[in-house]
Amino acid sequence: MPRYAFQIEYDGSPFAGWQRQINQPSVQGSIEAALARLEPGPHSVIAAGRTDAGVHASAQVAHVDLAKDWDTYRLSEALNHHLRPHPIAILACERVSDDFHARFSAIERRYAFRLMQRRAPPTFECGQVWHIRKPLDLDAMRAGAAHLIGHHDFTTYRSTFCQAKSPEKTMDEITIEAHEIARGMEYRFYLRARSFLHNQVRSIVGTLERVGAGSWAPERVKEALEARDRAACGPVCPPQGLYLAGVGYPDDPFS
Amino acid sequence: MPRYAFQIEYDGSPFAGWQRQINQPSVQGSIEAALARLEPGPHSVIAAGRTDAGVHASAQVAHVDLAKDWDTYRLSEALNHHLRPHPIAILACERVSDDFHARFSAIERRYAFRLMQRRAPPTFECGQVWHIRKPLDLDAMRAGAAHLIGHHDFTTYRSTFCQAKSPEKTMDEITIEAHEIARGMEYRFYLRARSFLHNQVRSIVGTLERVGAGSWAPERVKEALEARDRAACGPVCPPQGLYLAGVGYPDDPFS
Repeated sequence: MPRYAFQIEYDGSPFAGWQRQINQPSVQGSIEAALARLEPGPHSVIAAGRTDAGVHASAQVAHVDLAKDWDTYRLSEALNHHLRPHPIAILACERVSDDFHARFSAIERRYAFRLMQRRAPPTFECGQVWHIRKPLDLDAMRAGAAHLIGHHDFTTYRSTFCQAKSPEKTMDEITIEAHEIARGMEYRFYLRARSFLHNQVRSIVGTLERVGAGSWAPERVKEALEARDRAACGPVCPPQGLYLAGVGYPDDPFS
Repeated sequence: MPRYAFQIEYDGSPFAGWQRQINQPSVQGSIEAALARLEPGPHSVIAAGRTDAGVHASAQVAHVDLAKDWDTYRLSEALNHHLRPHPIAILACERVSDDFHARFSAIERRYAFRLMQRRAPPTFECGQVWHIRKPLDLDAMRAGAAHLIGHHDFTTYRSTFCQAKSPEKTMDEITIEAHEIARGMEYRFYLRARSFLHNQVRSIVGTLERVGAGSWAPERVKEALEARDRAACGPVCPPQGLYLAGVGYPDDPFS
């Protein structure tokens, strides 16, 4: 059976997450239902990252095996047609070799987090940003983030439900940008690693927000890391600002 | 009664437009309902521009007279509280003199129009952009737009329902920017004039899209203008890409 890889964008707001669930809307379930309109199922779409409820993707990657030899242009067009009105879009589709695996072949994940700071609530970005009201200290957040770069035991910064065998990960990048918006700022966090632990990004951003707000000194991020104790973590921030923004492969099907 | 001016952002998607209507959700009606939670009504909020159904605002300006001498910070906070869960945000509030009138004192309106060009449908920006599938020629659109700058009879580019006494207006600016997005482009149109005719922006953008698509030569924009005939206009584009982006006053309460 020919294998196809998809680059997928979705607004996670209406979904219980990526993963197929009984009686709950999911991104995987919606895509598999659209595939079933094209070929008899069941289909099993495998994603690089199984995003949580409310988490978005600007460039998720997934693969599926189909019976038919599809033209990739027609396949993505047909899928987008059948995905309506779900806020899921197939941005690109490529035929890949049988040894390509969206999850296991991935050597890099990139996440973005959008934090909107202003007094007024979000309108256009409702459900797409974490909204806070008070200004943040960008330099302090950057100083705090610097302590997390490199290879560490991230026990402090992962969910107690995380199923990864090891809490050790290598954080390759945490970049924080600040953009002026009307009557406030938008902070964009960019995190890059080979792979992430469960709730790692939200634990880190939630902690860095405490640093930006002045409640935590930047050094406390390092002390919390070294404590290897979940209780030392700052508050986990909400899911709606989080985006799976890219997945890297040794032989990238979309480059 | 003290007069207050508001700078207001709203997602127009769920509304039948700015204007209060019986049995239809409106931006004006929502704000007046929120005001009634603060002071007994009826209240009459007057806007600089009465946006149509589905049209957004990033910086609408409106004024209202209230009985109480409100602290402007507390007033905007209370309004934002009572406006929930409507996608309407009071960005700023200022006390203004009795001769300030959001509509009649305005000497400039700025509109923005977002056009997303890519094969896949929009997800995050659904209802906030006009989506088209085929690439556009930016230079051709700019050449077409140049014919509209200055003082003209815009009969061709206004709705037949337009109630303005004169079809003559002065277009001060039409700037078109192109931004790369994943697998496509976003075109942003910025239009600036003292005032606009009904459907003028949508008539112009819809026509310029035809130029960008290659269906119209840029010179046809000028020929259509000179025809002073509504039938010579290109197709009017949909409302969901349109934003009232700013209003100018001789003595701007928000500057």
